[in-house]
Amino acid sequence: MKIHFLVAALAFAGFSLCANAASEEPISPIKPPANINLGMVELGKKLFFDPRLSRSGFISCNSCHNLSMGGSDNLPTSIGDRWQQGPINSPTVLNSSLNFVQFWDGRAADLKEQAGGPIANPKEMAFSHTLAVSMLQTIPGYVREFKQVFGKNTIDIDQVTAAIAEFEKTLVTPNARFDQWLLGKKDALTETEKQGYALFKDSGCVACHYGEAVGGDSFQKMGVIKAYKTTNPAKGRAEVTGKDADRFNFKVPTLRNVELTYPYFHDGAVNTLPEAVDIMGQLQLGKKYTPEENAKIVAFLKTLTGDQPMILLPILPPSADNTPRPNPFGK
Amino acid sequence: MKIHFLVAALAFAGFSLCANAASEEPISPIKPPANINLGMVELGKKLFFDPRLSRSGFISCNSCHNLSMGGSDNLPTSIGDRWQQGPINSPTVLNSSLNFVQFWDGRAADLKEQAGGPIANPKEMAFSHTLAVSMLQTIPGYVREFKQVFGKNTIDIDQVTAAIAEFEKTLVTPNARFDQWLLGKKDALTETEKQGYALFKDSGCVACHYGEAVGGDSFQKMGVIKAYKTTNPAKGRAEVTGKDADRFNFKVPTLRNVELTYPYFHDGAVNTLPEAVDIMGQLQLGKKYTPEENAKIVAFLKTLTGDQPMILLPILPPSADNTPRPNPFGK
Repeated sequence: MKIHFLVAALAFAGFSLCANAASEEPISPIKPPANINLGMVELGKKLFFDPRLSRSGFISCNSCHNLSMGGSDNLPTSIGDRWQQGPINSPTVLNSSLNFVQFWDGRAADLKEQAGGPIANPKEMAFSHTLAVSMLQTIPGYVREFKQVFGKNTIDIDQVTAAIAEFEKTLVTPNARFDQWLLGKKDALTETEKQGYALFKDSGCVACHYGEAVGGDSFQKMGVIKAYKTTNPAKGRAEVTGKDADRFNFKVPTLRNVELTYPYFHDGAVNTLPEAVDIMGQLQLGKKYTPEENAKIVAFLKTLTGDQPMILLPILPPSADNTPRPNPFGK
Repeated sequence: MKIHFLVAALAFAGFSLCANAASEEPISPIKPPANINLGMVELGKKLFFDPRLSRSGFISCNSCHNLSMGGSDNLPTSIGDRWQQGPINSPTVLNSSLNFVQFWDGRAADLKEQAGGPIANPKEMAFSHTLAVSMLQTIPGYVREFKQVFGKNTIDIDQVTAAIAEFEKTLVTPNARFDQWLLGKKDALTETEKQGYALFKDSGCVACHYGEAVGGDSFQKMGVIKAYKTTNPAKGRAEVTGKDADRFNFKVPTLRNVELTYPYFHDGAVNTLPEAVDIMGQLQLGKKYTPEENAKIVAFLKTLTGDQPMILLPILPPSADNTPRPNPFGK
C-alpha cells in the first residue's frame, strides 16, 4: 500500500504546477453515462424509490441514498429496519458507477451486486430476495414493465438488481465548476479555489483522490501516519480478505459533491469539511495545514459539487388485492 | 349527524338517475388550484421533503405522505421517530386542500395548521417548532429562500407551515377518467363503471362522499347501522369536542385516488377495496352488496384515480458547519 502511495504521488508530481489542459490533470471531468438502457433506468428508478422492497414497507434505497441530499442520508450511520443502527456511514450513490468496487470494504464488484445487499440485510431493509420477487410478481404494473424491459414473463432478482444498477449509472453529477475549469472555462474558479487545488495536489491528496470520481479507485489504510481513533468496529477490507494487513483499509471515497455528503469518513464521525481536511492531512500525510491552507482546500473541494440528477419522482404501481402487505411492527 | 346524513341523502337523490351534465352530478371535477404563490410552493416542496425537520434527520413529510404512493405510506398506521407506531392511518396529502378540516378528527382548521402538527408530535417527527426554526436559520440556502419568499431576515414557524401548505395546495389530481366523463368525454367510462357509479349514488354512498373530493366535507360516524370493530383506540371527533356524541365521528375521507391509498379506514385495518366497499355497505348503509354490485362499485372507484402530481425531486440546501446535527439514536 505504501508503495502504491509513493508511486501515485510521484506520478502526479509532474502535473501539480500546470493547470491548463484537462488531459494533464490528475482529476478528469465527469463524462455523461453511455450505453444506457432507458427502459431499465425507468424501471430501476421505481424500484429505487419503492419501500415495498423492505420488510416494513417504509425503507427504500432512497431512504439512505437520498437524491435530495447528495445521494446520502447525512447521518453518521443509517437507520435500518426497526430503527436498527447501521454499522457504517452510507456512501453516496452519486457517481457510484465510477467506483472500482462497491461498499466501503469492496465486497461487491459492481452496482448490480451491491443493489441486492441492503434488500436482504437484516439490519437494513430486512427483506429477502425471494420475498421481494414474489411481492413484485403480484403487482400488475411491475409485471408488465419487467416484461417490457426484459422480455420474460417472470421476474427474478437479477432483473431487479440490474434495473436498479442501470438507474444508478445515470446518477452522475457533471458540470461542477471544477469540471468547467478543467474543460477550459478559465474564470470558473476563484484564485483561492485554484490555490486550494494546487495545495490538494502538492501535499499529496491526489495520491488517493484522483480520476473522474476524485477517489473510489483504490483501497487505502485509514490512518497511514497516525492511527484513526473511532469506536466504530468496522475492520474494512480485512472483513473480505481475512488478512490482517487489510485491517482499516477502506475504499477511498469519492470527493465529488463532498460538500453535500457530510458527515465524513466510514464512521460518519466528522461533521465538517475543515475538520475532515485537518484529520486527513495529519493522519494520511503527516501534515498540519494552517487555517489558511485548510480554508483553501475546502474552497477547492466545494467546486466539486456538480449538477445534481434531475429526478422526476416516479409514481409506483399500486399493490394488488393479493400483494403481501408489509410488516412494519409485527415479528 | 343523522340529520346531516338524511339531508345530504335527500339533496342528492334527485341527481341519481341523470348523468349527462357535470353541474347536475353530486361529484364535481377537480379544479386546478388558483391563487398559488410559486415561490412559496418551491420552498414548501423543499421543506416537505426535508428530513431535517425531524429529530432523527430521517423522517420527512414525504415519509408518511409519499408522493410516489398516492400521498400516503400504504401502511395501517405510520412509523414515527424511533419506530414508534402511529395512532391512526396517515390520510393522503393528495387533494387535502379540498378537505373542510384537517386530520381524521378535524383538529386542524386548514393545511397550514396541520403542517405544524407532525413536526412537533413526539410520536411522529419528534422535533419542536423552536428547534426546527433554529436549524433552518443556520442553513444559508434556506435563509436566502425564506427571505426571497417572505421578505424578512428571520425564519419563523408560520412561514414554514405556510410554505408547506402552499405546496400541498398544488397536490391535486385532476383528469381522472371519471372527471373526463363528467366534463363530457362520453366514452371515458365503461358500462360497468357507469353502473358502479349509479349504484354508488342510488345506494347512498354519495350522502357522505360527494363534491370535488368525493368526501372530506363532513364528520360522520364510523358504524351508523352496525358498530365497527377495531382495536384502534382513536375516539375521533370526540377527542376534540369532548362530547360523547362525537365518539367515532371521523372526517369522511376523500375517495379520490382511493385505488392508491390502501389500507383503508382510520385504523388502516382493511387492505382491499372490495372489502372496504362491503364493510361500508353493511355498516353505514345497512346494505349487503352482491359480488357483482361490489365489483361494479370498485370499478367506479378506480376511475377516481387522477393525474398524480409531477414532482421534480427538490435538491435540499446543505447544512452549514454550525447546523445542529440530527439525533437519530441518542436520547
